[in-house]
Amino acid sequence: MPADRLARQIAFLVEADRLKSVTRRTSLVDGSRLENSAEHSWHLALAAIILREYAAAPVDLVRVLELVVVHDLVEIDAGDAFAYDAAAQSIRAQREEAAADRLFGLLPPQQAAYVRDLWEEFEARQTIESQFANALDRLQPLLQNASAGGGSWRTHDLGRADVLRRMSPIETAMPAIWPTVVEIVDAFCAAGVLKST
Amino acid sequence: MPADRLARQIAFLVEADRLKSVTRRTSLVDGSRLENSAEHSWHLALAAIILREYAAAPVDLVRVLELVVVHDLVEIDAGDAFAYDAAAQSIRAQREEAAADRLFGLLPPQQAAYVRDLWEEFEARQTIESQFANALDRLQPLLQNASAGGGSWRTHDLGRADVLRRMSPIETAMPAIWPTVVEIVDAFCAAGVLKST
Repeated sequence: MPADRLARQIAFLVEADRLKSVTRRTSLVDGSRLENSAEHSWHLALAAIILREYAAAPVDLVRVLELVVVHDLVEIDAGDAFAYDAAAQSIRAQREEAAADRLFGLLPPQQAAYVRDLWEEFEARQTIESQFANALDRLQPLLQNASAGGGSWRTHDLGRADVLRRMSPIETAMPAIWPTVVEIVDAFCAAGVLKST
Repeated sequence: MPADRLARQIAFLVEADRLKSVTRRTSLVDGSRLENSAEHSWHLALAAIILREYAAAPVDLVRVLELVVVHDLVEIDAGDAFAYDAAAQSIRAQREEAAADRLFGLLPPQQAAYVRDLWEEFEARQTIESQFANALDRLQPLLQNASAGGGSWRTHDLGRADVLRRMSPIETAMPAIWPTVVEIVDAFCAAGVLKST
């Protein structure tokens, strides 16, 4: 093993530490603070293990876990774009491309390509694994907001249609869970946290 | 699918959110704050993906990822026992057993048994996957302390032998990385952060 190879891998893992400082809009269930993208990624991995039986088609769990573990790394440079902010979303793609070049480029070339493939697979939502991973990425903040009395919905003047559109990957990738999603959203409409339109 | 099954799985995932509030002794690389056990678990999963080639024997990556994702969950009830605190370690086992009963017991019975098996496999260090996962659990804070100028070593009056004993699972499970571990520890002895004995 060439020492340079291990040095590059360590440099990447040390740089990845910065994902722990990228703040999301979702708060912890206890409302004590906003969550960060590293602990969010861990929560998706746990959800993948626990909820795999709900995938619309059998998924390769190792691929799902690899996808969720790396899916937010580009936020180290590009930041977290709020899901309901259309303006931020439109410049997101190019900032994330540049971030992927720099961050994954810290790794030995073949491994950089492997991690970039994972990230691109997650973003493209073409494989059943990435569809399931994306559905988890929608479901986890929903459950967290629901458990935190509305959480980030409360401060952003959102309506039922906005949230259900955002959650729609769950309908395709985890159809058995969709009725529960609609039930949660409707309960928050009834409570006045979300607008009913 | 019985609705109760999904409700139990969701209750478990919501309760697991509390791992984000369990503070470890290791600080982030930038020194801004101490890390929590959820983001630490994510970092181990990333390290497993990046460093799997160094495993002493070929490992089943999905098992390794499952092990690192669940390995610290019991800390939600039992807290994080500092690795170098022998007194805390001795009462750790019984507190963690009780935590496992309660936390994993939130899940449907068969799944509770599955997650408990994962946790017990990690703790027992008998399989190659758990030996690799434990080695990552030692290596990640080492790299983080090394990158943070000594980090948690600095405040605990530790010596070379203490740290190398703590790191010894790396020697067995990732032998090609061991010389780098010794090199890092020796550099911190030379700099006076660690005692040389």
